[in-house]
Amino acid sequence: MNLTTFGLTPFVLADVGEISESVIFFTLLLSAIVIFSISYFCEEVCTRLRLSPVLGQLISGIILGVSALKILVFTDGDMAINPMVIDLICQTTGASTQEAVIAYSHQLTAISEGVANLGVIALLFVIGLESDLDHSVKVGPQAAIVAGAGVVLPFIGGTVGLMTLFSVATLPAIFGGAALTATSIGITAKILKELGHLQSEEGQIIIGAAVLDDLLGILILAVVVSLVKDGSIDVANLVYLLLGTTVFVAAIALLRTQIAKAFDAITQKFQSDNGPLLLAILLALAMAAIANIIHLEAILGAFAAGIILSGTRQQATLLHELEPVTALIAPVFFIVVGAKTDLSVLNPANPGSIEGLWMAAFLIVVAVIGKVTAGYLIPSAKLNRLAIGIGMVPRGEVGLVFVGIGASVDILSNMLTAAVILTVVVTTLIAPVLLPLALPNGIATEQKA
Amino acid sequence: MNLTTFGLTPFVLADVGEISESVIFFTLLLSAIVIFSISYFCEEVCTRLRLSPVLGQLISGIILGVSALKILVFTDGDMAINPMVIDLICQTTGASTQEAVIAYSHQLTAISEGVANLGVIALLFVIGLESDLDHSVKVGPQAAIVAGAGVVLPFIGGTVGLMTLFSVATLPAIFGGAALTATSIGITAKILKELGHLQSEEGQIIIGAAVLDDLLGILILAVVVSLVKDGSIDVANLVYLLLGTTVFVAAIALLRTQIAKAFDAITQKFQSDNGPLLLAILLALAMAAIANIIHLEAILGAFAAGIILSGTRQQATLLHELEPVTALIAPVFFIVVGAKTDLSVLNPANPGSIEGLWMAAFLIVVAVIGKVTAGYLIPSAKLNRLAIGIGMVPRGEVGLVFVGIGASVDILSNMLTAAVILTVVVTTLIAPVLLPLALPNGIATEQKA
Repeated sequence: MNLTTFGLTPFVLADVGEISESVIFFTLLLSAIVIFSISYFCEEVCTRLRLSPVLGQLISGIILGVSALKILVFTDGDMAINPMVIDLICQTTGASTQEAVIAYSHQLTAISEGVANLGVIALLFVIGLESDLDHSVKVGPQAAIVAGAGVVLPFIGGTVGLMTLFSVATLPAIFGGAALTATSIGITAKILKELGHLQSEEGQIIIGAAVLDDLLGILILAVVVSLVKDGSIDVANLVYLLLGTTVFVAAIALLRTQIAKAFDAITQKFQSDNGPLLLAILLALAMAAIANIIHLEAILGAFAAGIILSGTRQQATLLHELEPVTALIAPVFFIVVGAKTDLSVLNPANPGSIEGLWMAAFLIVVAVIGKVTAGYLIPSAKLNRLAIGIGMVPRGEVGLVFVGIGASVDILSNMLTAAVILTVVVTTLIAPVLLPLALPNGIATEQKA
Repeated sequence: MNLTTFGLTPFVLADVGEISESVIFFTLLLSAIVIFSISYFCEEVCTRLRLSPVLGQLISGIILGVSALKILVFTDGDMAINPMVIDLICQTTGASTQEAVIAYSHQLTAISEGVANLGVIALLFVIGLESDLDHSVKVGPQAAIVAGAGVVLPFIGGTVGLMTLFSVATLPAIFGGAALTATSIGITAKILKELGHLQSEEGQIIIGAAVLDDLLGILILAVVVSLVKDGSIDVANLVYLLLGTTVFVAAIALLRTQIAKAFDAITQKFQSDNGPLLLAILLALAMAAIANIIHLEAILGAFAAGIILSGTRQQATLLHELEPVTALIAPVFFIVVGAKTDLSVLNPANPGSIEGLWMAAFLIVVAVIGKVTAGYLIPSAKLNRLAIGIGMVPRGEVGLVFVGIGASVDILSNMLTAAVILTVVVTTLIAPVLLPLALPNGIATEQKA
């Protein structure tokens, strides 16, 4: 199995052509204005309704995306764009319709996805930077329990249920079950941060477990895609992946203090103002690339870079400087996730959707119960175990990666694809609503945090 | 004449194709790492050598670009990319050579140029935000003198010299002369800011004059391109452009205080944390788009938005939050300008370059003398008139826009194109070297400003 097929979402690139830079520039401005104004509006509304801004960003993405306005469209590219946008570009810049479509889809696919990718990297880097590792080590065993049970329960429940209740064939059923395993660190961590619970014991367990179940989820995905492709598991690649993960984690654990000291020593000799900030970003990008090279998720590398730099003297300064940068680019990630979600499969008027809706309802129940049960398996009754379980519910970007890979290897039926997408949407949407209810004391610290 | 042809640089878009997202993501990380590490290195070296960081960024662009490493390549796209980069992508991600080339040029053209464009907008917005308008109005007449003379002298000197000394035909000679008119606000303002001279009377005159000669340069460009295309001036478009400019400037002058008050009133009602920052960015983007729509440079719109918000209560907070954002994205603009500059035309070993080198030498002399003379035309001997003239010298992005348009309307010979590019490079490179010498008292305030 070739692990580089991970994250395979059909990515439609623009046609070859020479488009005037002024057209490109105007479409860039237009895209930025639309994204910023709608996300700002939704964030403000969510804040006033005491909902999570992440929810606002996801909803603005859904409003902008394929489901509604069709202003932010990623798949099927050209044909799917709202014609009003294209008309506006043509009338303003004098470009032809074809030029406007190419320029717009070019700007959208590359810049929105690029900024979204950098945004989730920045977010995980900042979350790592804010972490208190001594605290995290204490919660390690609990996190392992939550992660292990949170992967096994939805995986088995989903697979068996799809086979018995919906007569899905074995391989697609395994794929559907596997898509339920991995928690979205990005969404969960952002919600916890907004609730002021990132440093609480519950928050640390959730983040630790989310990191672990991402690793487990990636392994399961490797096995499943391998099964789909060859009918057998490619042991060499699996061993490589396990070895790579082990070496990566061990190297960070061993070299963490040395790298932090080296960072302090180097930055002390800097004369240019932005030296420390640039070097920190460089480390985050480099570790993201290394994670990518050894076939882990890039965001795990950025997260590890943040953890390393949390031990430096520059921690507070870096956090302070990265705050506005992250505030500007991280929302783009959630907007893009929302925009890529096609809610038209929800339409109950379409008879073809009905079985998909039932399948989705089943997967959602398994996804939620699996993670909440995993939370309750923690032996300590002092902890808010319900909150831990709910914190593990959102599947977000990881679930969407599974859907993309499923599409690329032609294993998922349209119905199962729709059901998995719905599960991702619902699990992602309910966590920001439920978590503040399960962690009520966090609300007070959220204001102007 | 169709003014939407402004800024026409051949923009090669990638081939249609489906590239895996992991390949796109890895190339994004790779591009970001290369850009950040080389620009960081050059900035640190320049700071230690007491040169301007802008110079470091331009040089890092030249090192990364077509002239040397060919890692950041914009024209002729695919063929010109350093094969080592492509090999690295192929070996790491398992992509085919073709996929790697498409992914890489896709990421490069869209993201580098997109971020560069947003970077120069952010830069001008911040410069506007820092401005002290009461102070600027006082220097208005001096700025008008510098701008007027600084446009007329290089235009006439360049055109007549090209015709008489180098036997260039009338239209290309006019184009060559016109390319010498407009100062690069972005580069000049950044240098002044680093020298701590943005608020000095000299700094205010330079910025004011740079804004004015950009407007004048755009008008001349409109006329010249119209001459080249039709053999006559399109009066309707010219009137439209003049009217648009007048209305834009008048509207800002009249509504400035009201918009600032409205901004303060709205942001006071905000509940979401990032509301004021997002609204400010939205205003900057919207005014950039409006400027673009009425065929002015977008950066003038962002600059105007900054001036408007400099009158709000949020000024200090906004500046504080935008500082790290600008520090990260504005350098990309200067890196891209450097990367697009092909220094291979400098090669004196190539006999075809010799006349081009003489032509360039002539244009450089006219470009420098024209602006320095314009500085000395200010009646007040108390001002550092040499510094004002030198501050007007860099042509930067505006000169490159002229070159791009010249290429698109097939009016410039290769030799004249090369000579104009060289003039842009040299005028852009010498200002950061000479300005600190002409404004020596600024050096002290530069440290950790």
